[in-house]
Amino acid sequence: MSTARPSRGRDVVWVNGRLLPSSRATLSVYDRGFLYGDAVFETVRAYDGRLFLWPQHARRLAASLRAFRIPAPRTDLAGVARRVIAARGLADAAVRVTVTRGTGEGLVAATGLVPNVVVMARPIPAELPARREQGVGVLLLPFGRGHGGITDGHKTNAYLSAVIGKTRAAERRAFEGLYVERDGLVSEGTTSNVFAVRRGRLLTPPLEAGCLPGVTRQVILHLAAEEGIPYETMALQAATLHELDEVFLTASTLEVMPVVRVDRQRVATGKPGTITRLLQDRYRAFVRRTLARSRA
Amino acid sequence: MSTARPSRGRDVVWVNGRLLPSSRATLSVYDRGFLYGDAVFETVRAYDGRLFLWPQHARRLAASLRAFRIPAPRTDLAGVARRVIAARGLADAAVRVTVTRGTGEGLVAATGLVPNVVVMARPIPAELPARREQGVGVLLLPFGRGHGGITDGHKTNAYLSAVIGKTRAAERRAFEGLYVERDGLVSEGTTSNVFAVRRGRLLTPPLEAGCLPGVTRQVILHLAAEEGIPYETMALQAATLHELDEVFLTASTLEVMPVVRVDRQRVATGKPGTITRLLQDRYRAFVRRTLARSRA
Repeated sequence: MSTARPSRGRDVVWVNGRLLPSSRATLSVYDRGFLYGDAVFETVRAYDGRLFLWPQHARRLAASLRAFRIPAPRTDLAGVARRVIAARGLADAAVRVTVTRGTGEGLVAATGLVPNVVVMARPIPAELPARREQGVGVLLLPFGRGHGGITDGHKTNAYLSAVIGKTRAAERRAFEGLYVERDGLVSEGTTSNVFAVRRGRLLTPPLEAGCLPGVTRQVILHLAAEEGIPYETMALQAATLHELDEVFLTASTLEVMPVVRVDRQRVATGKPGTITRLLQDRYRAFVRRTLARSRA
Repeated sequence: MSTARPSRGRDVVWVNGRLLPSSRATLSVYDRGFLYGDAVFETVRAYDGRLFLWPQHARRLAASLRAFRIPAPRTDLAGVARRVIAARGLADAAVRVTVTRGTGEGLVAATGLVPNVVVMARPIPAELPARREQGVGVLLLPFGRGHGGITDGHKTNAYLSAVIGKTRAAERRAFEGLYVERDGLVSEGTTSNVFAVRRGRLLTPPLEAGCLPGVTRQVILHLAAEEGIPYETMALQAATLHELDEVFLTASTLEVMPVVRVDRQRVATGKPGTITRLLQDRYRAFVRRTLARSRA
């Protein structure tokens, strides 16, 4: 593994078995993640230095690797992720694990390529707790995720739509952009799943809408069941999203993020709704409970 | 620019102002082309060491950079492309020019990023002339390009669909995979535009179908007009594509490639059609004429 061990709190990245200072962490310009987006990744939340729901993320990563027939790396990715967090001196962090098909030009990859593995970590944005308190605005994007494509439901390095969507949202001072597919339905946010509440019922688009099978999305559905909140997977019309009683986003780093504005329209009272608050609470409790169990 | 000048015929790549041996040509793992596919590229054909239709490619590159608001690099890209071809000792080549938004994490890019520019060249596959003589088979893909997405009509590093599509085609011994969108229409090949002929009329999907505004596609439409061949941009049904009189593909490196098989179905007699042959001829003449003019 790494020979030089950078001191705690240094800006390091793990690349193919070595922990390197960010400034020296490089890959070939023939890496297929670079040339073609031929790579998949996971973003995992760490609380207090510990990876949250790693098995779920590892399972999704494995499923995406299988779907694209990228060989699974033989690396202990969880161990590496923990090392990167520790080396960076982070307690709370978002860890990105990227696996590319390897180095080599040509759309049809040569056989026997060795995947390139990159693990990086970043701190959790400091403003998130306040945002979760007040709620955020979202922008309805004038384009979809590219519904019907082969990358539906996967986190891949072919992520340009998310770059453009999130950037447009930021330009309008919105926190997140929601993809609106050709049928006028919301599939997901650029980096989040979307939920709504109508008359006490929790709604979220089905995976067939082209959304990511979010790890946090799944936890929320589980918590809703525990709380006896009825839910269904259901198409959400973009045009009438703001008319629903509550709207919120989920993602590993966001947790449960209330949406109080869709474009220029206020959602209900313009404050986070009751069920959103309840699920925020229950999610936090679930995090504590899960971490306590994994410590045991 | 480059300090060390590699000798002719060496395997070199141009990265941000330097001509480097391929083995040392790297970019940061924080390059946005790598992290997100946040980059655009062009593949340009060189004949006899000279770039073919460079202005057209440069214009499309500029349009894509503008569309994604990636700053245009201040590099003489054509000059660099010629240097790379010369350094590699290639006469006929496919040159790939890639421009990424720069180096830096976060979907919303920091302001003031400097684009990373990579220029690489590869030889033209030796089997192409024979393939153009005999025609090739194509595979109808069970997925679309992701029609309706923001990357429609652009060549971006978010190119995973093309990797998967071309690979599936190769596995079935097909030369190319054609994207079939949700509406059952063919938009394009993974790296080519699609044409067909029906009762003497040339047909090709309109840009609204989500296809790339191919430089070669445009030349073919121009040559058809010159030859008095009527043409229209029209949706092509995947299910009945093989029933048309002729089918062919176009791309800068492919030129005019006859399609004689769609999945397991033969197209017409299973030989390249008359209009396809005519356009192959005219395209070759157009190449000679254009190069002669640019030499003058």
